[in-house]
Amino acid sequence: MSQTPKLSFSNQEISGKAMLVEEVDLPLADGQPVAPFNSLRMLIPPGGCSTVDIHDSKECWFIASGNGVIIYNGETRLDIKPGDVLFYDSRRSHQVFNHGDEDILLFSIWWR
Amino acid sequence: MSQTPKLSFSNQEISGKAMLVEEVDLPLADGQPVAPFNSLRMLIPPGGCSTVDIHDSKECWFIASGNGVIIYNGETRLDIKPGDVLFYDSRRSHQVFNHGDEDILLFSIWWR
Repeated sequence: MSQTPKLSFSNQEISGKAMLVEEVDLPLADGQPVAPFNSLRMLIPPGGCSTVDIHDSKECWFIASGNGVIIYNGETRLDIKPGDVLFYDSRRSHQVFNHGDEDILLFSIWWR
Repeated sequence: MSQTPKLSFSNQEISGKAMLVEEVDLPLADGQPVAPFNSLRMLIPPGGCSTVDIHDSKECWFIASGNGVIIYNGETRLDIKPGDVLFYDSRRSHQVFNHGDEDILLFSIWWR
């Protein structure tokens, strides 16, 4: 395992409307993941948004910077700000819109 | 379970040098935690630092804002910036210093 604790990112892609998604390269030990979750970071520029996402996995979002609006389960609309943490239960749709004037950076963690 | 996905925080405390720590209230389902990890957020003002932390649990830090320096395992010194993700293996000490001029906000996830 690396001597530095700083992790790299891979599988960079553009998704939704101009959202940059990068997976966190969580380490392996003896070929097995050390973490019981997967992780990625998302950067959503002003005017951008994610796709509507819905899946069996449960997920948490950690809002690092920016301000925006999340539509949850097709019905709940809520404002988000830096420091917020959100939990999405299985099969609950979620989408984020950046209506602000700075990038939204957020971290996602998901697990079965 | 709540209709809003936004989570609350509890057990707020000051730790290290002026670091504000708040635990994320991750939800329960049928009395059991839904997440295979625990989580908290830390706010370290300019000039502040965390205590030296060392434990059996493995941990990831997600840097939300600010700039600082981490001392890892008593030997590795590295600069951190927003978007960085760090992994601390079991029994590897870690401490963060805010040498910058804005707050460091970071999220911690830890698990056995």
